Amino acid sequence: MIRLDASDAGFEAAFAALVDDRRETSTDVARDVSTIIRAVRDDGDAALHAFTQKLDRHDLNDTGWRVDAATCAAAFEGLEPELRIALELAATRIRAYHEKQRPTDTDFTDAAGVRLGARWRAVDAAGIYVPGGRAAYPSTLLMNAIPARVAGVERLVVVTPTPDGEVNPLVLAAAHLVGADEVWRVGGAQAVAALAYGTQRIARVDVVTGPGNAWVAEAKRQVYGVVGIDMVAGPSEIVVVADAQNDPEWIAADLLSQAEHDVTTQSILFTDNAGFAAAVEAAVERQLADLPTAATARVAWDDNGAVIVTRTLDEAIPLVDRLAPEHVEFACDDPRALFDRLRHAGSAFLGRHTPEAIGDYVAGPNHVLPTGRRARFASGLGVTDFMKRTSFLQLDESALNELGPATVALANAEGLPAHARSVALRIRTNR
Amino acid sequence: MIRLDASDAGFEAAFAALVDDRRETSTDVARDVSTIIRAVRDDGDAALHAFTQKLDRHDLNDTGWRVDAATCAAAFEGLEPELRIALELAATRIRAYHEKQRPTDTDFTDAAGVRLGARWRAVDAAGIYVPGGRAAYPSTLLMNAIPARVAGVERLVVVTPTPDGEVNPLVLAAAHLVGADEVWRVGGAQAVAALAYGTQRIARVDVVTGPGNAWVAEAKRQVYGVVGIDMVAGPSEIVVVADAQNDPEWIAADLLSQAEHDVTTQSILFTDNAGFAAAVEAAVERQLADLPTAATARVAWDDNGAVIVTRTLDEAIPLVDRLAPEHVEFACDDPRALFDRLRHAGSAFLGRHTPEAIGDYVAGPNHVLPTGRRARFASGLGVTDFMKRTSFLQLDESALNELGPATVALANAEGLPAHARSVALRIRTNR
Repeated sequence: MIRLDASDAGFEAAFAALVDDRRETSTDVARDVSTIIRAVRDDGDAALHAFTQKLDRHDLNDTGWRVDAATCAAAFEGLEPELRIALELAATRIRAYHEKQRPTDTDFTDAAGVRLGARWRAVDAAGIYVPGGRAAYPSTLLMNAIPARVAGVERLVVVTPTPDGEVNPLVLAAAHLVGADEVWRVGGAQAVAALAYGTQRIARVDVVTGPGNAWVAEAKRQVYGVVGIDMVAGPSEIVVVADAQNDPEWIAADLLSQAEHDVTTQSILFTDNAGFAAAVEAAVERQLADLPTAATARVAWDDNGAVIVTRTLDEAIPLVDRLAPEHVEFACDDPRALFDRLRHAGSAFLGRHTPEAIGDYVAGPNHVLPTGRRARFASGLGVTDFMKRTSFLQLDESALNELGPATVALANAEGLPAHARSVALRIRTNR
Repeated sequence: MIRLDASDAGFEAAFAALVDDRRETSTDVARDVSTIIRAVRDDGDAALHAFTQKLDRHDLNDTGWRVDAATCAAAFEGLEPELRIALELAATRIRAYHEKQRPTDTDFTDAAGVRLGARWRAVDAAGIYVPGGRAAYPSTLLMNAIPARVAGVERLVVVTPTPDGEVNPLVLAAAHLVGADEVWRVGGAQAVAALAYGTQRIARVDVVTGPGNAWVAEAKRQVYGVVGIDMVAGPSEIVVVADAQNDPEWIAADLLSQAEHDVTTQSILFTDNAGFAAAVEAAVERQLADLPTAATARVAWDDNGAVIVTRTLDEAIPLVDRLAPEHVEFACDDPRALFDRLRHAGSAFLGRHTPEAIGDYVAGPNHVLPTGRRARFASGLGVTDFMKRTSFLQLDESALNELGPATVALANAEGLPAHARSVALRIRTNR
């Protein structure tokens, strides 16, 4: 964890280093992934079978390639009531939020008599990757699948590795809740390749989303363009902007909620009060002492954490913009004023009673967000990631006569005479 | 050119081959591009200078790194009046169409008392790649730059190679018309690297769009995630669905307008009348005889063209969906009925008086469209490609008490105790 003070002489250099430290895994997995994708394209299910045996240590022909709908339904019915109700609340609220994202078609006729517009349609099929093991989060399945359903995707395919043949009942329950059409027990780069190119058993999809390890992320990057993907994901981060009127324990818990995800995550506190900064640091230490995930959170906090003191909270805003964080909390009296001035963040959490974790589960907005400074140009996952827009034009003779001559002039200037002819023939005939 | 009849026994196999033929360049440029990007990251302007000397055969220190605004303005003023008016008409109509794409922010309070929504902002800076030489199209500069301007991008950077030091006055004129803030005389993968990572002279941008050769396309793929990009572009295509009531010369011109772009482009005619198909084929041959771009169009038509006869035009629709073409024309009496049934296309041109070329220049919709079957999942370039969405949440004590327990239950079930604590601390305090 580094401590910085915006008034210090060396601040700019130290802060610039913080911004530029991308914390991306540098593991060179590209060649491995390329080999795996090639094998799945060439050998289909046989390759999936072999990779699963090798990497997940079970035989798909014994354990089964698919989890059927009845098994998912049983997992859902078998949840503790508290958990089932919580998942249902989350699904309902996520659906309500994303329904407002549905795009509107346009269709109008302009002064030249040209009818034009744009029409949105869902993709035919979407594939959702759900990691196995520790990071198998049912909430992530909801956050990926529900926007696809709201978009109107007809075929929703879940792939998830089941290491040693063990299924995760929470993931199956979530698959039931979103009405997944297929659940396949495959993971890794091989599962992404199967979704993108198809195999004998798994029909290809159009869009692949969902988090995964470095192999999965690289596989998505390599199939980008063959299918749509959600984004290139990197390590997760939170920025908390807090004044001294907060309970230091609350703010410490928020910083640690990010740190417990992974050793590469980053938690940064901005405050206008050095005493409060010290109090939060002390609270972090106290909470780490009894946190079950302390082994991870300790490394993330020590290696990537930062506490930055500015003269005012206003002064923090341009610094937060340079970080373009995945999550930003404004724990102060007038959070909206600060948020209005901020340009770059994946998601914002306003006020003292809005811890980031509330947005991970039940609030409604998506928790799949741009990381690693990508909020400069990217958005969280949404309904239009599972849709595409077709523009259209319709001209009658009169409209073509009006727009035709300019088209002929430009096409000829660009050295494209067949373009010019396709318009000129129709104008000549009309005259 | 292949002729297919949907009634023939071998049709399904032949059509499937047509769909699967991606026509992507297989040149292995990835390693070259990776070396170039590394050099620009390490050496900045020195690398740009060296690559430009080697590949474009001029010395940037002599010819100048930038084209200044006065030179662009002079190029615009020097255009023939007909061309200047045509460019202005195009810009006005493109702007009007894209203004309707501006997204709306949302901000509402739901029944649980949660205030939530989403806010759109433009990216800070966009870089537009404009190819040099034969494919230096001013129309493409308009199609890329105007959506960025409508989005509200404050810094608009154009990069364009000037082989042998020769500038293209049409491109400079278009740069003036869109009010480009900077025009740099660099191209190739090195220009894309400079836009993504920045050099001493060129500040990095947030989004890079625009067409280019295989090196430029691969460079955009490699920097995807460091910046946003428009899309992975492949060879261009048109599908024309036409009944026998059309003038075969008009339809032949439309097919050739696609074929003249590049030898990899594809033109496909669907018709319900074998006699009309033959008449169009004959017209293509007649027009090729005097077409100045015949050397290119002939190869594209012979290698990739197709004429497909179906029993009815309706029967063509599911086949067109499998092709998911960049452009589709419906040259028939009720084009809207066919378009309503189609799911996948980049842009649709409805009716006998709507040649595709009208959409390339002045109609208004974007001509940067998904190619190579990518209309299954991708859209044409638009305003939101230069914007990003920040979701936000604001809970008061009462709302947190309502949503908090479900969050705690889910966080604990997912093994994320610090998430649970960040909520539980606030609920406990409130009670």
